Amino acid sequence: MRGEAVYYCGNRSLRIEAVTVQPPGPDEVQISVGFCGICGTDLLIYRGRMDERVGKRRIIGHEMSGRIAALGERVEGMAVGAPVVVRPLAPCGQCHPCRTGKNRLCHSLKVFGVDLEGSMQQLWNVPARAVHRLPDGLALAHAALVEPLAVAVRDVRRARVAPGEDVLVIGGGPIGLLVALVARKAGGAVTVSEVNPHRAQLAEELGFRVINPRRANLAAEVAGATHGKGADVVFEASGNQAGLDAMTEAAAVNGRICIVGMHLDSPRLDLHRVIMRELEIIGSRAYEAEDFERAIELLREGIAAERIITEMRRLGDVGEAFRDLCENPASIKTLIVVNGAST
Amino acid sequence: MRGEAVYYCGNRSLRIEAVTVQPPGPDEVQISVGFCGICGTDLLIYRGRMDERVGKRRIIGHEMSGRIAALGERVEGMAVGAPVVVRPLAPCGQCHPCRTGKNRLCHSLKVFGVDLEGSMQQLWNVPARAVHRLPDGLALAHAALVEPLAVAVRDVRRARVAPGEDVLVIGGGPIGLLVALVARKAGGAVTVSEVNPHRAQLAEELGFRVINPRRANLAAEVAGATHGKGADVVFEASGNQAGLDAMTEAAAVNGRICIVGMHLDSPRLDLHRVIMRELEIIGSRAYEAEDFERAIELLREGIAAERIITEMRRLGDVGEAFRDLCENPASIKTLIVVNGAST
Ligand SMILES: [Zn+2]
Ligand SMILES: [Zn+2]
Ligand SMILES: [Zn+2]
Ligand SMILES: [Zn+2]
Repeated sequence: MRGEAVYYCGNRSLRIEAVTVQPPGPDEVQISVGFCGICGTDLLIYRGRMDERVGKRRIIGHEMSGRIAALGERVEGMAVGAPVVVRPLAPCGQCHPCRTGKNRLCHSLKVFGVDLEGSMQQLWNVPARAVHRLPDGLALAHAALVEPLAVAVRDVRRARVAPGEDVLVIGGGPIGLLVALVARKAGGAVTVSEVNPHRAQLAEELGFRVINPRRANLAAEVAGATHGKGADVVFEASGNQAGLDAMTEAAAVNGRICIVGMHLDSPRLDLHRVIMRELEIIGSRAYEAEDFERAIELLREGIAAERIITEMRRLGDVGEAFRDLCENPASIKTLIVVNGAST
Repeated sequence: MRGEAVYYCGNRSLRIEAVTVQPPGPDEVQISVGFCGICGTDLLIYRGRMDERVGKRRIIGHEMSGRIAALGERVEGMAVGAPVVVRPLAPCGQCHPCRTGKNRLCHSLKVFGVDLEGSMQQLWNVPARAVHRLPDGLALAHAALVEPLAVAVRDVRRARVAPGEDVLVIGGGPIGLLVALVARKAGGAVTVSEVNPHRAQLAEELGFRVINPRRANLAAEVAGATHGKGADVVFEASGNQAGLDAMTEAAAVNGRICIVGMHLDSPRLDLHRVIMRELEIIGSRAYEAEDFERAIELLREGIAAERIITEMRRLGDVGEAFRDLCENPASIKTLIVVNGAST
């Protein structure tokens, strides 16, 4: 069998190639990938920032939805044609976190689309244990959001958002907006900080209070809206130093700050404020199977997550889609239609 | 009435002056101060690092014990001669933290010996609400440790140390050693990281495993002793960048890191590690009344905290005591005998 695949081949170079696909191994499932989202990590890879992990010939992609095309001989309880998503983690199974139920924190975790071949290919063989069945009636395109939504579910869980709490999300990109939606579902009163007008507008349409931190003093605005208290929970989803400065400034005493954005280096942090206000800085990484199931449930219930899908591109336009997201990010979440026949 | 007082008068200058003491106000208690400890904050003041808050004419000192010398007319339930300590905080009573039972996090908290006149004076008038009665049978000199021990009690509370957890304390100064003692009392298996040989020796005598991070790889040693897991809880009590680097390196996945040392600026923090290991960085500040009561109880039960008192100096030698602590810190905790008659 032949299928097309998108290879990252070094700094800003993507190539679409027809590849010969093996049948699935005994414990594998072959998936006809329908849709694949482009995420911040993919853009980091595209810009050559992760070559050490990724190398220069890798099929990228880890946010997907599709249908089962074939089953390995030992796989049970699944059927060809069923709509599915894949939890794109390959934990070692041996280390301390793996042995204590924390696969997501495996010391040598491999991620599909980063360390292993990813989902931007028409026929993808993956371990059956990584496959999650989708409920009927959920649009397959929307299900491509399960992976980033599972990240948001884990973030909100780690930050322990409780009903009635004032929540600030710094950065209204895809993950920031999904975190905002899940935090609101958990009972939080959510404000989003964002400078990009496209993202700010969508955040407003989704019903969030939006502050542009270049036009207003973010911490003062949050304090003003909370009787001088500040935000009980802050999510830092901007990934930049301005966001890191704002997060400690805007948090209430005993506030929890969850770091959502990627940080490849060691930025500066206002530890004096962390002490004076007794803040908590909370790291959050990936997800477990339960977070995937919860994300599927939230999508099915209708959390409006599909509103962040602002563009659909054909597989042949993947290069253009990456260039647009890097240079002029008018789109929030762009999906690549990998295999029109599967949708 | 006349009494002697130690004034900080700008960069490394201390002056002992005889002052005229007013009788206590209606809601105040006058205390004959017996002992006053010198702490890291006092050394920062001495080096001119806190002039903005302290000014250049301030009676310093906030770790003390003494006896009641006189009572204001509205003060009830206290008796002249009773042994006491003072919780040296003056919260505003109006702000959000004050109104929600978190006096220690008052937005305009004033600290005796920093923002207000402190305890390095023979007769000290303080609000009656700040006074804690000591139990009989507790040596007055040892009770000068109640304040720093209350800091350690709050730190261990904030870090949620549980029985059986592996605890690493980075920095074996007075606060680090008190945190180590309280963490062990809470059931932790405690390791202390320290380079100073005097401090390392005392830590060993107190029964802790001690690692010199200049001679061994701290994170590797901790991992080796915990089957590759790392420390469940880390206390950063060194206050320097090396300690901040080591704390994220030595922590287990989902480890909690409590920042105990003072940090006046915004140092670098390995946020990548915070995310990859899902760490929690926890700020901790001061104490509430309950922490003072718990510290008094621990001292009475015999937690060996008095072992950190390594020097007693006469009031007249206070300048020399500060110079020694700055230049050649062979002493762990130095107490000033403020009023020999009160002891
Ligand atoms: Zn992603
Ligand atoms: Zn593992
Ligand atoms: Zn102190
Ligand atoms: Zn206050």
